Amino acid sequence: MKIIVAGGDGFCGWPTALYLSKQGHEVTIVDSLIRRKWDQELASNSLTPIASLDDRVACWARHTGRTIRTFLGDLNHYDFLREVLIQTRPDALVHFAEQRSAPYSMIDREHAVFTQVNNVVGTLNVLYAIKEIVPECHLIKLGTMGEYGTPNIDIEEGYLKVNHNGREDILPFPKQPGSMYHLSKVHDSHNIMFACKAWGIRATDLNQGVVYGLHTDETVLDPLLLNRLDYDAVFGTVLNRFLIQAAMGHDLTVYGRGGQTRGFINILDTVRCIELAALNPADNGEFRVFNQFTEEFSVLDLAHKVQEVAAQDGLAVRIGNLANPRTEKEEHYYNAKHNKLQDLGLNPHLLTPKVLRDIFHSVIEYKDNVIKANIMPKINWK
Amino acid sequence: MKIIVAGGDGFCGWPTALYLSKQGHEVTIVDSLIRRKWDQELASNSLTPIASLDDRVACWARHTGRTIRTFLGDLNHYDFLREVLIQTRPDALVHFAEQRSAPYSMIDREHAVFTQVNNVVGTLNVLYAIKEIVPECHLIKLGTMGEYGTPNIDIEEGYLKVNHNGREDILPFPKQPGSMYHLSKVHDSHNIMFACKAWGIRATDLNQGVVYGLHTDETVLDPLLLNRLDYDAVFGTVLNRFLIQAAMGHDLTVYGRGGQTRGFINILDTVRCIELAALNPADNGEFRVFNQFTEEFSVLDLAHKVQEVAAQDGLAVRIGNLANPRTEKEEHYYNAKHNKLQDLGLNPHLLTPKVLRDIFHSVIEYKDNVIKANIMPKINWK
Repeated sequence: MKIIVAGGDGFCGWPTALYLSKQGHEVTIVDSLIRRKWDQELASNSLTPIASLDDRVACWARHTGRTIRTFLGDLNHYDFLREVLIQTRPDALVHFAEQRSAPYSMIDREHAVFTQVNNVVGTLNVLYAIKEIVPECHLIKLGTMGEYGTPNIDIEEGYLKVNHNGREDILPFPKQPGSMYHLSKVHDSHNIMFACKAWGIRATDLNQGVVYGLHTDETVLDPLLLNRLDYDAVFGTVLNRFLIQAAMGHDLTVYGRGGQTRGFINILDTVRCIELAALNPADNGEFRVFNQFTEEFSVLDLAHKVQEVAAQDGLAVRIGNLANPRTEKEEHYYNAKHNKLQDLGLNPHLLTPKVLRDIFHSVIEYKDNVIKANIMPKINWK
Repeated sequence: MKIIVAGGDGFCGWPTALYLSKQGHEVTIVDSLIRRKWDQELASNSLTPIASLDDRVACWARHTGRTIRTFLGDLNHYDFLREVLIQTRPDALVHFAEQRSAPYSMIDREHAVFTQVNNVVGTLNVLYAIKEIVPECHLIKLGTMGEYGTPNIDIEEGYLKVNHNGREDILPFPKQPGSMYHLSKVHDSHNIMFACKAWGIRATDLNQGVVYGLHTDETVLDPLLLNRLDYDAVFGTVLNRFLIQAAMGHDLTVYGRGGQTRGFINILDTVRCIELAALNPADNGEFRVFNQFTEEFSVLDLAHKVQEVAAQDGLAVRIGNLANPRTEKEEHYYNAKHNKLQDLGLNPHLLTPKVLRDIFHSVIEYKDNVIKANIMPKINWK
């Protein structure tokens, strides 16, 4: 298949591009490289040293003989996006190209407005460009489990059968997002749902859980292919962040009581889910929603698991219960369905002690790259 | 009370500002006058001749001795908005200042992006400005009944009690908006809900039905106070549009079979609803939703009513069943609750034959102002 990976220079996008290329797909990366600029803005960095996108794809071609084409530009520039679609005529467009940090979106008004405009307009442009140029192209859009919030009922995959006053309907699952970023994803979901209905576009919204891990079979082929890894309080996600904190001997930054429960997924499964969605496209006019995670954990569960792994290496790590900078429930019901990708053939990589230890040992290697000032959260939801 | 009416130069905003001023409130209008520019863009006009905003408020002051302060500017300019709030320190901010036409939002990609960015960023700015400058100010935001779409269950006022797999929660009512404009209002609602929860802002979201009528007790005081009235296929809403078509002897532009059922409200009630919301503010942190309409009609019902009124004046008017330019169900269940504003004291002006006839006679007076080329719909959802 011809597949565009928008945001293909990022933490999920890069290993996805490599995996899809290895499977024999014709992959094109579209990226504005803005994620690297945010590192500069925040005086932060990837834990791992990352090569330029040019060096990355050149290295991949040397090792595998496979070409990944790249277009450097922003989805917010419609003429650029049009040109990419005209030149590549993709069967699927995988859309990772959004500002994906909740804390970044909560820095101040400017960052909130930037996040919502960037994400919403980028996705609107993708919808209009597909409609205009490649109406059969399957949009595979990354959403987030955070769109649902933490309702007191089971979370279904996108839709909810409702009985009310003696009548019944299947309706979009109600959304209760918890940051300006999560809101932008809810906006996207509504916009895509409408475009499917009005224009017959085919789309899959992947409400992804928190991704952990670093290496994939492809990124370990060469140091130039190494994936980025975020540890700071703005872009670092919870399990990876704890592993890096443990590697440094830093207290684990649990926010509040730590009863916050979320869905989690190994980066090895992220890349597989994307291919499964691409190989089994939504129908014309269908707005399909999958919950893309494999297991649920509370933040405190994870902190304990990381403590144990560190202890096996003789490292005593403490749990620091910080005042919660976010507005969220710290104890709540959580049971989210995630069957549809497994029905398509996903065979999950679960979070065994060995998996956790392997990631831990991978990150220890780079621990001296950490800029310590970036570990503690400074952005408050209030 | 000190009340800002953002969008106070428009069809709903202007009579609301006058009504609130008459009731003794200290009213400030904020408006960018962009609605007048859209007339130029579309080579259209108000059926009624409308005075400049300066002349309008000067005339009001002459008749009543009451001052309405005006600020000309755009909510998208945060520094301007900040300055307005610092100078006025309102108790309530009524937010009508959005692009409110579904067809306009569906003209093309640029108009869709403009509508969503304009509406979403304007409302984000209002939320941040309230948080920063007047945290006790009550936001009264105009939403639309179109946010709900046409589900096969009763539509509640903002929230739905859900029983699912043996558990229960009260969740935001699922939204199925039918245009890029309606989507922008859904985005706003989610953003405001979050701001209430995270920052303790008090907000009322008024999901208004289709507004009809022209004059209010205040706008008839002087020709300079006359309200605008839209008849064209872009900004004209259904009942007013039919009345004007009948006045001209034009076929009534029913889209498709005309079974589309919606909630309707007289402009006389719109202005009262706004005051009721202002006098009974939401609590701190409360995101309150009212459905602001008084009766339900199908499009075909209304066409028949207009036919009858015209026939009484000896005018034979035909119903033209046009191919539907929109993507919407033409036959569907519709039962939307609208009790909360009546519980606060709204005494509805219902659509009696006399009311319909009075509006009809008002619009006949201006029928020669119609630009005929603007009557038939040219914007298609596809």
